[in-house]
Amino acid sequence: MEQGLTETDALVVGAGPVGLFQVFQLGLQEIRAHVVDSLPYAGGQCVELYGDKPIYDIPGISVATGRELTERLLQQVEPFSPTLHFNQVVSEVERQADGRFRVATSQGTQFLTKTLFIAAGVGAFQPRMLKVDGIEKFASQVAYRVEDPAQFAGRDVLVLGDEDPALQAACDLAATARVTLLHRRDGFRADPSRVAAMRELVAQGRMQFKVGQVTGLREAGGRLAAVEVAAPDATVSALPTDVVLVMLGISPKLGPIADWGLDLERKQLKVDTEQFSTSVPGIFAVGDINTYPGKKKLILCGFHEATLAAFGAAAIVFPGKEIHLQYTTTSTKLHRLLGVSG
Amino acid sequence: MEQGLTETDALVVGAGPVGLFQVFQLGLQEIRAHVVDSLPYAGGQCVELYGDKPIYDIPGISVATGRELTERLLQQVEPFSPTLHFNQVVSEVERQADGRFRVATSQGTQFLTKTLFIAAGVGAFQPRMLKVDGIEKFASQVAYRVEDPAQFAGRDVLVLGDEDPALQAACDLAATARVTLLHRRDGFRADPSRVAAMRELVAQGRMQFKVGQVTGLREAGGRLAAVEVAAPDATVSALPTDVVLVMLGISPKLGPIADWGLDLERKQLKVDTEQFSTSVPGIFAVGDINTYPGKKKLILCGFHEATLAAFGAAAIVFPGKEIHLQYTTTSTKLHRLLGVSG
Repeated sequence: MEQGLTETDALVVGAGPVGLFQVFQLGLQEIRAHVVDSLPYAGGQCVELYGDKPIYDIPGISVATGRELTERLLQQVEPFSPTLHFNQVVSEVERQADGRFRVATSQGTQFLTKTLFIAAGVGAFQPRMLKVDGIEKFASQVAYRVEDPAQFAGRDVLVLGDEDPALQAACDLAATARVTLLHRRDGFRADPSRVAAMRELVAQGRMQFKVGQVTGLREAGGRLAAVEVAAPDATVSALPTDVVLVMLGISPKLGPIADWGLDLERKQLKVDTEQFSTSVPGIFAVGDINTYPGKKKLILCGFHEATLAAFGAAAIVFPGKEIHLQYTTTSTKLHRLLGVSG
Repeated sequence: MEQGLTETDALVVGAGPVGLFQVFQLGLQEIRAHVVDSLPYAGGQCVELYGDKPIYDIPGISVATGRELTERLLQQVEPFSPTLHFNQVVSEVERQADGRFRVATSQGTQFLTKTLFIAAGVGAFQPRMLKVDGIEKFASQVAYRVEDPAQFAGRDVLVLGDEDPALQAACDLAATARVTLLHRRDGFRADPSRVAAMRELVAQGRMQFKVGQVTGLREAGGRLAAVEVAAPDATVSALPTDVVLVMLGISPKLGPIADWGLDLERKQLKVDTEQFSTSVPGIFAVGDINTYPGKKKLILCGFHEATLAAFGAAAIVFPGKEIHLQYTTTSTKLHRLLGVSG
């Protein structure tokens, strides 16, 4: 349990690519940052949703996986040695009389910060839970991700979900386990080629697909033995199950951010396009969590937003100081900050 | 001399990093682009001003020279095979009755385009001219770049300039011509190693270096025979000269863009921040040439601008079609466009 009160000029909520680049741009403005993230590592969606998948539209990088992009950004922020606080979400934000924000996390870490950057993407990642009576009793037989495919080998695996991660996991596990993919309708929010691959395996008898919903659980000897599945015509059947792999999507939780009194529009934080400031001066929102006319949820747009937000922060952290744009190519001051000789 | 009329959906003015990324984002929207640039190669300022200098603030790229960044972007746009038209500036833009723009370049190339993207940075790069009375009469004896060293062989060549290109050209030509390098003072804005190489050739008597300025021209038989050079002590001497190689640097010119009826603010094109459209629908401005509240002249900001501008263009090129944001990581359509298997 991390404790104590940390005074800082900037606190970044979210260690995804945009949060990391926020740290970099703050660094160029001579502002040191602390970073809080709900995950146990940096990268956010980039690692959680497409760690091994290629991204093709980062400017100047023809292809990089989410994990590679994260590693590149971690390398880029190294000169500014941000302090990363993992496994915790921000639970409270309160403006103090002196204008600073007191921020507390779920682990009890407290910050007093002059500026706050919400780079929380789609929110703190939490897998959408399977809601069925009695499920909490069988926690050891319910998984929300495939950490080690060997754990599933030779078992009856029920995969729940209709998005790419569910279909991919079902197809992957079909090689070594008896897999049934269950979804409430015969339609998917997944890439057509992935759906086709799944259907091919079903046609070959190498996995099953069922339309229906989990309505109950059957126990045998203290363990989950089967799940009850209601078909669209309301008939219920029992499906032998050793493991339920719940991939109903991650339900990013905006969490307490929704209660901070910031202007929202469809759960997005409204910002201006000059500094990407929220309706509360000193609190900026960058990346997928914000909205403004023309907004596209693209990583490269978040990089731009973080850059202008850093200029906005500099005006708060260094009041009265003229903030000039300097170029990393030519500025000896920036070379010093970056620890390079130019 | 390039000729003919090309019909296209998009024309990008400027092959710098932002112009190249504009081509990439247009490609993702299934819009093919032609590109016009005043230089004989891609890269714009990135190559012309800091080809060998490191840039540290491209997101995910800890360090790259201007030339390296350009090469990376050229690689990234490869799937979209843009047609690059070099060595010409756009001289005319005229809206047609059907809403398209007729664009003509200094080489006589003509385009009919539905959308126009001005990614012209600080303007078209044009070599700074030698200003001395009567010089226009001897155009055939004045060069602004070395296209073919053989043209200079065996001749009296006067090289003007103090930057790397001037010193390099002087040293290269010294092997086959009688070269004099002239600069108004004995100091150079060039790489020290290049200065040393030049001084070594002078010490060996293989070329000359003089301090002074061109103040007049001497004619013989209708040709330039010598230039008059004023030394720092104001004494004037005549220097036999067959060719003057003017390498006084490049001076970017906004050129005719200033006359296209677009809203300007201090020579920058005013744009909205939703689509980065100028005051003329269908004409977008991205990168260093535009201005809006909060604008910072940074390459990474231009990448964002080009991205939203491409969405703006899609609405014009495909009227009535719903334009959805797709991700390069998951979209099979984008994979097909990029020529990758996902």
